[in-house]
Amino acid sequence: MREHNLALALREIAFAHTPVSRADIASATGLTRATASSLVDALVGAGLVVESGPTARPRGGRPATGLVLSSTGPAGIGIEVNVDYVAVCVMDLAGVVRHRRIEGGDWRDVPAPEALARAASLTADVARSARRSGLRLAGAALAVPGLVQAPYGPLQLAPNLGWQDLDVLAVLRDAPDLPAVPLTVDNEANFAALAELYAAPAEPGAPRSFLHVSGEIGIGSGIVLNGALVRGRHGWSGELGHLTVSPDGPDCTCGSRGCLEQYAGLDAILRAAGLPAPRGTSLGGVSAVERIVETAKTADPSMLAALESAGTALGVALAGALNLLDLDAVVLGGAYARLAPWILEFVEQEIGGRLLSAPWSAPQVRASLLQADAAVLGAARSVVQGVVDDPASWVARVGA
Amino acid sequence: MREHNLALALREIAFAHTPVSRADIASATGLTRATASSLVDALVGAGLVVESGPTARPRGGRPATGLVLSSTGPAGIGIEVNVDYVAVCVMDLAGVVRHRRIEGGDWRDVPAPEALARAASLTADVARSARRSGLRLAGAALAVPGLVQAPYGPLQLAPNLGWQDLDVLAVLRDAPDLPAVPLTVDNEANFAALAELYAAPAEPGAPRSFLHVSGEIGIGSGIVLNGALVRGRHGWSGELGHLTVSPDGPDCTCGSRGCLEQYAGLDAILRAAGLPAPRGTSLGGVSAVERIVETAKTADPSMLAALESAGTALGVALAGALNLLDLDAVVLGGAYARLAPWILEFVEQEIGGRLLSAPWSAPQVRASLLQADAAVLGAARSVVQGVVDDPASWVARVGA
Repeated sequence: MREHNLALALREIAFAHTPVSRADIASATGLTRATASSLVDALVGAGLVVESGPTARPRGGRPATGLVLSSTGPAGIGIEVNVDYVAVCVMDLAGVVRHRRIEGGDWRDVPAPEALARAASLTADVARSARRSGLRLAGAALAVPGLVQAPYGPLQLAPNLGWQDLDVLAVLRDAPDLPAVPLTVDNEANFAALAELYAAPAEPGAPRSFLHVSGEIGIGSGIVLNGALVRGRHGWSGELGHLTVSPDGPDCTCGSRGCLEQYAGLDAILRAAGLPAPRGTSLGGVSAVERIVETAKTADPSMLAALESAGTALGVALAGALNLLDLDAVVLGGAYARLAPWILEFVEQEIGGRLLSAPWSAPQVRASLLQADAAVLGAARSVVQGVVDDPASWVARVGA
Repeated sequence: MREHNLALALREIAFAHTPVSRADIASATGLTRATASSLVDALVGAGLVVESGPTARPRGGRPATGLVLSSTGPAGIGIEVNVDYVAVCVMDLAGVVRHRRIEGGDWRDVPAPEALARAASLTADVARSARRSGLRLAGAALAVPGLVQAPYGPLQLAPNLGWQDLDVLAVLRDAPDLPAVPLTVDNEANFAALAELYAAPAEPGAPRSFLHVSGEIGIGSGIVLNGALVRGRHGWSGELGHLTVSPDGPDCTCGSRGCLEQYAGLDAILRAAGLPAPRGTSLGGVSAVERIVETAKTADPSMLAALESAGTALGVALAGALNLLDLDAVVLGGAYARLAPWILEFVEQEIGGRLLSAPWSAPQVRASLLQADAAVLGAARSVVQGVVDDPASWVARVGA
């Protein structure tokens, strides 16, 4: 019961836009003032909450002590290994990104332990910075582009990395640099959707049922229905990139034919525009999405045609997803956020023409504000949210 | 609190395979014997539960009075209007179908009020029979093949019936014969999935996350994830028939091109086999599915090729749905249950080749046991389940 009430009290502080008092918490939760006060003391003692000075009292009266989430309390680390970059970040309890690192590369021809060792090394860097900022590391979450059994693995398949049947957390844990924190893993598209969900509440009326598309070399998606991630039976939902656009289309890395990735993935767009796909960015080259954006900005006809084809194929697949799922919105994330000026129109056109319910309620299609950062932010957010949802475990862990 | 406890007590009786006693209910729910006994008296008084004679006492002791769901208590009516038939049934509280009527026809060129008047007339028939059996009608639920806002409408679109923007329950209510009972409406594929869900628990380990496909002239589906129907934002989920199989394929009744229905709907199968689609069965003709089954049984090469094409297209669309949703099973329902011997192999082949996760956990694909009855059974079940979930409202309604 106290565990539940600790979470209730912390949620009141976390969701408020201004500092709240012990009395505010008592009245919002229906707890007595004494109970609320004792819960707050425990949250302060465990470093989750700090006193911020007197609250404003709009109706007058004596100002009370304001409470806000601590910016030196527990923090979560997000780690993303993707086909052409590795990214890490540290997020504090209030959802603010405090440290981040991103490094281009090409991990397609590299053994998994080497890619994960690089991720571990960047993680060690941001962990040191975080500790210097006074943060305490609650855990780290790894985002991978493929089928993985969340939250502890194994990874079944990351087709674009060439990884298969891998205990990905064990490999990460074996890297010499990795700081000693609890680890979890999930699909990058699920984490990206989670980040979008948490980024949204600030806008009133923001859609709470949406598909977040992570468009990179590969294409994944995360399904959010009524504010909750739809993960499927094994956590393998959202494999939009392997929806068939044309049954006899080109071979895919997954073994099937005519998958969306072969029409609308970044390499496929470069190929269709007659450009070589850049292999790696670590030696000063530009990434696939930068190459596409640069070329599109020159109004190169081959590139514009390639982007139209990609947008059309993406729209066909998304219309299918929307016919199945009945959502409010599609968020174009990852590299698609940058390509939106050239693809959005064609995506909307296919959805308008192919979604049975479009004449009654056409879903909004928009670019993500988080862009390629979404997955790593969502990974860090999952750790932070774990603490907010269950502060009692953190209180027990720090012995407060 | 008493409302909640009434539901708890009724659930104990509903889910038991043998009669239970008042003491069994007390011990299973943690209520006192006096409370349990008073709740049971209310359930008996409202006609929901009857005493069935003494319970077996495996460990000896005095036999107690056994309690079972009443077979003369509240009952639900299911009504389905589909492209080539109208069906109605009455289900009692225990889930037993007590009366049913089905009538072939062709409702494609018929105004909605006429089709719904026919449904109302059949409903009046079974309602009279139900009353003669001592049942009390708790309500009726209408299943329609199209987009509809459950539970009260309106209907947006039923492409194969040619209905659009129709207050379908108001039209049904205007039919002179309709008995005065509360009415609700939902998509037939959602009701069919619900029927499959309730049919399944009898088998141990039965899949609880599945897609139920309703294959008729049109093709719909209902999504069940972890034992609950995924209805989407407006109740429009599961429109499998309008997933694109080939972007430049044949025109569909919905206005799009290359929809699954144009490859795997019953009319499409007949067309591909070079046979005319039967228009209506009310004058002694055979239905589309009967025509297909008859012809397939003669090993007619055109029909076998048409069924292979249909199974392949269905498999492509289902692989897409499974890539998105990550489910345990696909249930081929409606007419597909009868076509399974000729299409199942091709469906499985496409799923095996196109579902990214198939090598790790291939979903089961099987024919529905309920066949074309599923939607009307699910509709009736939704009414009955409403009473089981909220017996207090029924108690209040009958003034017990």
